[in-house]
Order: sequence, then structure tokens, then C-alpha cells
Amino acid sequence: MDQFQNIERLSLNQITTEKWNIREAVDGCARAGIPWIGLWRHKIKELGLPGSKRLLRDAGLKVSSLCRGGMFPAATATERQKRLDDNRRAVEEAAELGTDVLVLVCGPAPDRDIGAARKMVEESIGELVPYAKSYGVKLGIEPLHPMYAAERCVIVTMEEANTLAEQYQPDEVGVVVDVFHVWWDRNLYKQISRAKDRILGFHVSDWIVPTPDLLMGRGMMGDGVIELRKIRKAVEAAGYDGPIEVEIFNHDIWNTPGDQVLELMKERYLEHC
Amino acid sequence: MDQFQNIERLSLNQITTEKWNIREAVDGCARAGIPWIGLWRHKIKELGLPGSKRLLRDAGLKVSSLCRGGMFPAATATERQKRLDDNRRAVEEAAELGTDVLVLVCGPAPDRDIGAARKMVEESIGELVPYAKSYGVKLGIEPLHPMYAAERCVIVTMEEANTLAEQYQPDEVGVVVDVFHVWWDRNLYKQISRAKDRILGFHVSDWIVPTPDLLMGRGMMGDGVIELRKIRKAVEAAGYDGPIEVEIFNHDIWNTPGDQVLELMKERYLEHC
Repeated sequence: MDQFQNIERLSLNQITTEKWNIREAVDGCARAGIPWIGLWRHKIKELGLPGSKRLLRDAGLKVSSLCRGGMFPAATATERQKRLDDNRRAVEEAAELGTDVLVLVCGPAPDRDIGAARKMVEESIGELVPYAKSYGVKLGIEPLHPMYAAERCVIVTMEEANTLAEQYQPDEVGVVVDVFHVWWDRNLYKQISRAKDRILGFHVSDWIVPTPDLLMGRGMMGDGVIELRKIRKAVEAAGYDGPIEVEIFNHDIWNTPGDQVLELMKERYLEHC
Repeated sequence: MDQFQNIERLSLNQITTEKWNIREAVDGCARAGIPWIGLWRHKIKELGLPGSKRLLRDAGLKVSSLCRGGMFPAATATERQKRLDDNRRAVEEAAELGTDVLVLVCGPAPDRDIGAARKMVEESIGELVPYAKSYGVKLGIEPLHPMYAAERCVIVTMEEANTLAEQYQPDEVGVVVDVFHVWWDRNLYKQISRAKDRILGFHVSDWIVPTPDLLMGRGMMGDGVIELRKIRKAVEAAGYDGPIEVEIFNHDIWNTPGDQVLELMKERYLEHC
């Protein structure tokens, strides 16, 4: 079957239907025939880990990843330790929920020193790796768009994510490619190719023009300027054949009934991804 | 005199006091003792070229740069030619106004093909260089923040700007370093150093947290997270000793009386830049 003509790899990242709780999201995926789901920790908290796990298993839904670990840099050693402990909990949750990918959003600097924050990220990942490995969980470093460097993540390019990941084995640390964050990068295809056999996730959405908002301005695939199919092909040429998550922060989409969003998502995925 | 304790290099980029026309801006700089001004073409249109020129000369105000040329990529050859013609007018205006720097905001893609747009930028600069040179005007490629890649400029890193500029002599094409656009880049200091003797402008403002808006979210120096003094030192180590423009898009600042803005600007410049 043509790889672009089916939804076998399609995954609903839970944030795309932000108003649905885990039960509604699982039911929605079942109705829509979407085989994968990307989970968020705060959404799992609502029902608890065992209940969420049972729900997923009963629906036969596969978990593409858990969002999110990270947020490593902090002003004090105590706070950094607290963050690291929270990351260990995230590793445990990922394993328990049946995914081997924990997505890392690495965090901003606690001050003006972005270089120091990047070092903290590097050190914290180093501390987390053995723990994650013992649970069979891989750490997926997701470079975020540079416009989030001050508030969410000091790792903002594929080049940086690759450089960090390459300090470890591919079954320990890899990268997550989210088109919204990296589409603008002249080195994108070179860096995707460099990430060969180390890509742990592929997220799609679109960059809409004009862009209405820093955080909530993502669009549905096809509504923007990102060369989705081209990037997907590059990611696949680099050995990635796993689930493709649709992850969209957008109030209009959040305010649309979930079933409608899922139908549109399937249609656009087949047409553009 | 300590290089950081005077305002001899301070320049008001006209957009910072957006509500002032050219006459008000020139008078404001004179009152505040600010020796440089960065001009915008739409502001010059209000009074006309000869009138603006006379105004500047009478006030003894030096022109740090003209904003802006660029906007090269377009869907048709006719439109591209029109853009190029407009850039020739911008070159003439820069020369007439007494600055040898035309700032280039290179433009977005007319479609989804960012790679093709980058090629158009490269070609158009090549066509513009001889004309600019004949007027003694240097082209300053300003990489814009990647969040503007779809709407304003496909050249988004110092690395890209350097690679473009290096095809020409330093008295033909250089780069403009605006901290707001490049502060997040892990390769920033390496690329500033690479731009040695090719830096044609240095723009300051700040990245405020939380960032309220893509376009209008810039802050006054000291109100955000950018390591201004560190970047200035790097730019100077790369041989730049020209004017330092304060360029801020921010409604709160635009709504503040201009004289107050200039006083705050001087204070913050001395403290943070």
C-alpha cells in the first residue's frame, strides 16, 4: 500500500483536542480509527495512571510518546534536583503507559545566561539517561522554535539537538522533529540526515500566515507554508518509520468539536503529509 | 573616555518613536543630544527627500542607515523586477540622505518553497550590488528572527547572512546584527567573529518575557533577557565601531511621549549596552 494513502502511522497528540479528557480522546480515536495517541502528563493525572492504562489497552490504542520531560535549568541546585526527580517520574509514567519515548522540552534559562542554561540541559540529560535506560525509555530531545528560547526551551535547532543526542547511543537519546519548530532552518535537511536512526518522533501541524500568536498560532496541515511532504520524506530517508503525531496549539481548533477535528486531521494528513 | 560611558554612538531608529514624523524625530534627537538617526523610507516620504536632507543637515544629525531595501522574492519575473527597481530607488535615497548603509530585509517566499525564495534573494542581491556600489552604498543583510521567516525574511541566521555577504567585498555587502533577531543562536559568537570587518550595523532592544506579540513584543534594553553588553563586545571585537541603533516595535513605547522614550533610551543604553 502507498505509504501516503493510509493512516496507520497517524497519532493524535492530546493537545490538539485540548478540551477532551483522556477518556474522550481515547473514544474519539477509536471512533475515527486513529491507531496512535501522544499523551500529556497533565491529561493522565485526571484519571490516574492505572485507569488511563486500562482505557488505552481496552481501546487497543498505541501510545506514540509521552509529553513531556525536560525543564532542566533552574536557579538553584535544589530546584534542579527537583526537576530531575520529576523527570524520573515522567520516565516511569512513559514505561507504565507503554511507550518508549519521553519527549523532552528542555526548558528556558532562569536568568539571562542562555549558555549556562544549555550546559545545565546537557548535564541533566546525562544524569537522566541511565535511569531512563533502566526503564527501556528513550529520551527524545525536541528542538523548539527559537521564539520559545526565553520561555520554554534553550535547545532551538536540530543541530543542537543532534549534538546533544550524539553523546549517547541511539537507543538512549534521540531527537523529535516537529515541523512547526524547525521548518525555517536552512540546515534542516542536513540535520535530519545527520539524525539517521536517531529520530524518535515526527510531529506535524502548519505555520499559518499571518501568524496570529506565538503559542496559539499553529495551523492544521495544509493551512500554512510548511513543506510537510518534503520534510516527511527526509525524515523517512533518515530511517524513521514510527507514528506521526498531529500536535496543534490553536484556540479555533480547540473550540471545534473533537470528532470534527479528527476527521479534518485525517483528511489533511492524507493530502499533505 | 570609557566606551560604555557616552552616547557618541547612540542612534535613534525612527521606528522606536513611530508616532513622530521626521521633523519631530530630528528635533527630539537634537534636544536629547543623540547624534545619530536611523531613517525609514516611509517616514522620509512625508516631507520628501530634499526637505528631509536639509532638516538633518541643519540639525547636524548623522544618518546611521536607511531602512529598508530587500523584499526580493516574488511569484513573477515582472514583480521581481519591480522589487529590484524599488531597491535601486532605496540605494539612491540612502546616498542622498548621507548614509552608506542600506539595510536589507530580504523578504518572505511567495509560496511554500523557502529554498527557492532564498535563491531569489541571492540572485537579487547580486543584481543590486553594482548599482549600490556606484552610489557608494553598502548593502547590509539583516537576518531576521526565524519567527518572521514566513512573512518578512527568509534569511534568519547570521550564518546565512554571512554566507551571502561573503560572495562580495566587505565594502559591497555586509551584515546588520540586531540582537532581537539573533540572541537565541548558539552559533552567534562564532558568526559575529566570522563577520569581521563586515558588520554594517548594530541594533539593540530586548526580548521581554513573557513575549506579548510576534511583531510588537520588543522591549527597551534591560527589560528582557538578552545579554546586550556581551553581544556588543563581540561585535566590537569583530571590528565594528559605528553607530548603535535602538530599534523597538512596541505599542507601549510608541504611546509614550517621544522625549521620555529618548531619555529612557539613553539611560538604558548607558546601563545595559
